[in-house]
Amino acid sequence: MPSTAIAKHIKEIPKISTKNDFSVLNEPWTVWNWYKKPDWVHVLGLVFMPIYGFYMAYTSVALQQKTAIFSVLYYFFTGLGITAGYHRLWSHRAYSAGPTLQFILMLASTGAMQGSIRWWCRNHRAHHRYTDTEKDPYGAQKGLMWSHFVWMLLRQDPTTVGWADVSDLKANKLVRFQHDHFLWLAPFMSLGVPTLIAGLGWGDYWGGFIYGGIIRQFVVHHATFCVNSLAHWLGDMPFDDRHTPRDHILTALVTLGEGYHNFHHEFPQDYRNAIKFYQYDPTKWLIAFCAFLGLASDLKRFPTNEITKGQVRMQQQKLDQIKSTLIWGTPIDQLPVYTFEEFQAMATEKGQAVTLIEGIIYDLESFVDEHPGGRSLIRSAIGKDATTSFNGGVYDHSNAARHLLERMRVGVVAGGGYVEHRRSTTSSGAHRLSTVP
Amino acid sequence: MPSTAIAKHIKEIPKISTKNDFSVLNEPWTVWNWYKKPDWVHVLGLVFMPIYGFYMAYTSVALQQKTAIFSVLYYFFTGLGITAGYHRLWSHRAYSAGPTLQFILMLASTGAMQGSIRWWCRNHRAHHRYTDTEKDPYGAQKGLMWSHFVWMLLRQDPTTVGWADVSDLKANKLVRFQHDHFLWLAPFMSLGVPTLIAGLGWGDYWGGFIYGGIIRQFVVHHATFCVNSLAHWLGDMPFDDRHTPRDHILTALVTLGEGYHNFHHEFPQDYRNAIKFYQYDPTKWLIAFCAFLGLASDLKRFPTNEITKGQVRMQQQKLDQIKSTLIWGTPIDQLPVYTFEEFQAMATEKGQAVTLIEGIIYDLESFVDEHPGGRSLIRSAIGKDATTSFNGGVYDHSNAARHLLERMRVGVVAGGGYVEHRRSTTSSGAHRLSTVP
Ligand code: HEM
Ligand code: HEM
Ligand SMILES: [Fe+2]
Ligand SMILES: [Fe+2]
Ligand SMILES: [Fe+2]
Ligand SMILES: [Fe+2]
Repeated sequence: MPSTAIAKHIKEIPKISTKNDFSVLNEPWTVWNWYKKPDWVHVLGLVFMPIYGFYMAYTSVALQQKTAIFSVLYYFFTGLGITAGYHRLWSHRAYSAGPTLQFILMLASTGAMQGSIRWWCRNHRAHHRYTDTEKDPYGAQKGLMWSHFVWMLLRQDPTTVGWADVSDLKANKLVRFQHDHFLWLAPFMSLGVPTLIAGLGWGDYWGGFIYGGIIRQFVVHHATFCVNSLAHWLGDMPFDDRHTPRDHILTALVTLGEGYHNFHHEFPQDYRNAIKFYQYDPTKWLIAFCAFLGLASDLKRFPTNEITKGQVRMQQQKLDQIKSTLIWGTPIDQLPVYTFEEFQAMATEKGQAVTLIEGIIYDLESFVDEHPGGRSLIRSAIGKDATTSFNGGVYDHSNAARHLLERMRVGVVAGGGYVEHRRSTTSSGAHRLSTVP
Repeated sequence: MPSTAIAKHIKEIPKISTKNDFSVLNEPWTVWNWYKKPDWVHVLGLVFMPIYGFYMAYTSVALQQKTAIFSVLYYFFTGLGITAGYHRLWSHRAYSAGPTLQFILMLASTGAMQGSIRWWCRNHRAHHRYTDTEKDPYGAQKGLMWSHFVWMLLRQDPTTVGWADVSDLKANKLVRFQHDHFLWLAPFMSLGVPTLIAGLGWGDYWGGFIYGGIIRQFVVHHATFCVNSLAHWLGDMPFDDRHTPRDHILTALVTLGEGYHNFHHEFPQDYRNAIKFYQYDPTKWLIAFCAFLGLASDLKRFPTNEITKGQVRMQQQKLDQIKSTLIWGTPIDQLPVYTFEEFQAMATEKGQAVTLIEGIIYDLESFVDEHPGGRSLIRSAIGKDATTSFNGGVYDHSNAARHLLERMRVGVVAGGGYVEHRRSTTSSGAHRLSTVP
């Protein structure tokens, strides 16, 4: 690199490092600008801290049984704080929580160290409103790793994130309190509390710090991140396929029930993510239990009628997809029309193996030898109207046999009854029919 | 019972006991006729023999390891003889077997002690042709136990079984040989051979007789019977639901692969019962392996296109069933038609919360407060055409939102564009529209 370029670069530093200048994000990575792209606070919390934690766990802090049990419990406490609090309560207003529950949820979720309620919900509402677009802060279209946590490791230009209304959160005193005191409250709930509990409880300060704090926080982080990555990548789309969200039991297991994400994106105001009782959605169970205790109310459910419509729509779509790959034979109203005499002549004069069933002419040539009912019976139908024998007179044929027939149709007989009637009630059929002498 | 009646009854005995007189079958059970109803040979083989076998096993014949292994192998040998031989080859001609394979299958299946090929296939063909009717020898409509084996414990009037063509079997020398020598060949293959193998092999004559003979035969019997009982009773109907046959993995496990019975009844000439590679159909695997060895050929498969049509038909039927339970709102062509001015007046003069989207008028009254996008945005649509804002101008609503709308429609605006067009192309719509000034 010529020295003038370096000089130019150095000159630019003051401007770039201004807090609100994000132009470096649009530049290619170079030796000179790389350190300006990451969000170093996030890198510290998401990369260096876990490395330190695992290093300590591996080299010097033994895991005690009590600390292990406590860490798992604290994982559920803080994890459910995110799912029932940040996500379903504050982002989606899927239910109402009384002051007690709000306070508990605030403390719990702050211990997950995922930014303030306001920051989180603002991004999340944009994620729902602009799913899979450039305005989605963790748009799945940018890849699995991006949506998992790369989006956070890099600095974020807030103006690129789509607009979302968070006036309700700004008006909420508790949310405001948490936002304003996040800098000390989050480390305290995430690292301080577990250290103190394990320390004062059974003398294991270091264990509480490493396992109950850092490692537990690491696990909760990645569990939450999976909702943005895995849940947009793995599974089915039973409710809608316009966007990437998917339903998968594995994601649900990892994320305390947030894995029914196709449902969730389609019905975000619903306090449930899983609608079947046997699906794993502990967050839903917790909310329902809080409602039972009187701590929560107004649990919103999207009408079952409309949920089912979504499912039916998707299933119909899949079915139509399969149908379009099948051979259905010439559509009836595209078949040539013959008189009954012409039909008979096909068999007698031209020696064609044609039969007539319900007004439609079928060419049995390729099938006579394969007929499960034997050659002679099917031969007896050639040149004749076999409607009655086919429909039970001799043998009531299966739907499979009817389906086989569809491929063999070659014409329609004018005045053939049943089909005749169908044809004359559709405009195109009526038109075609009228051209027959 | 008056003595004259008894006398009358006694007088009748000679007539009733004539081999071809089955009139007693239609009489109610009495102390005087009960012994004439059972088929005593079948009762001996299906009830008394197993009782004797289990009694001996319990009291005096210990199970040796070699005999146990041999009995299981002989179970597969004779069981597959029935499924691949009696059933798929001779009843359904689902493939062609060379003389070697036919001979092996004949010996194997005779060891299952299930009557001659001719007797079995005659009944089975009638079962397929007259499924679930009085002409079906083991019709499932008569109950689980009847179709399992009660039909066999009672004497059978062959004239009540529907007619089925077995001329091919009568013309087959091997089948004829087996039929003519069944009386000694069956006990020899079923009881003699296992006794001799275990006896000459490792000195366990009694074990061979009881475990390899009687008990193994009992197990093969009931496995086969399950095809007629369980397979018409438990499971799904993915291919057709006109009759009772069902698909279930459990039945398949018990019956060497014959549990995909809904498929089988719909496509009886197919050498497969299970069409997916991961489904359990060892009989199919055996036939395919024999074809690989050159012992079998001409393995018949129903065209996949038509198999899929059956599945699609059933799925569509289920979906239509669900659809019919849902509320879809007033059909568009049954809505009253208004002018655009009338629509505006509804909002301005009558104060109704109506909006217009794609030519249809919606009453939002019940929904304004529930709108996830907030009250003010949805209020801004009242009395106006909100097509553009609803479809992305402000927010591109989900299909869930569109489904919700369907319930709220209350009218159509004449000249409303999109729907207008749809209405004028359907005759009823066109008619209705023409009544509008
Ligand atoms: C015209 C086209 C025909 C087709 C595509 C056809 C197809 C079939 C098929 C697929 C079966 C197997 C059982 C089933 O799936 O229902 C069958 C059985 C049979 N067909 Fe046909 N069939 C045709 C015409 C006829 C006619 C005209 C007769 C009689 C006059 C006839 C008599 C029978 C009988 C008696 C069986 C029963 C065989 C048995 O299981 O014993 N078929 N046919
Ligand atoms: C007319 C009947 C309307 C219905 C039934 C309706 C329904 C809904 C529903 C169900 C949602 C949740 C997200 C979704 O499912 O797509 C939603 C969100 C939204 N609606 Fe509507 N809406 C209507 C009209 C409008 C109108 C006229 C506007 C704007 C002028 C509007 C603006 C919005 C916005 C901005 C959101 C996004 C909320 C967010 O997630 O940030 N809606 N609407
Ligand atoms: Fe998402
Ligand atoms: Fe969400
Ligand atoms: Fe059956
Ligand atoms: Fe069969």
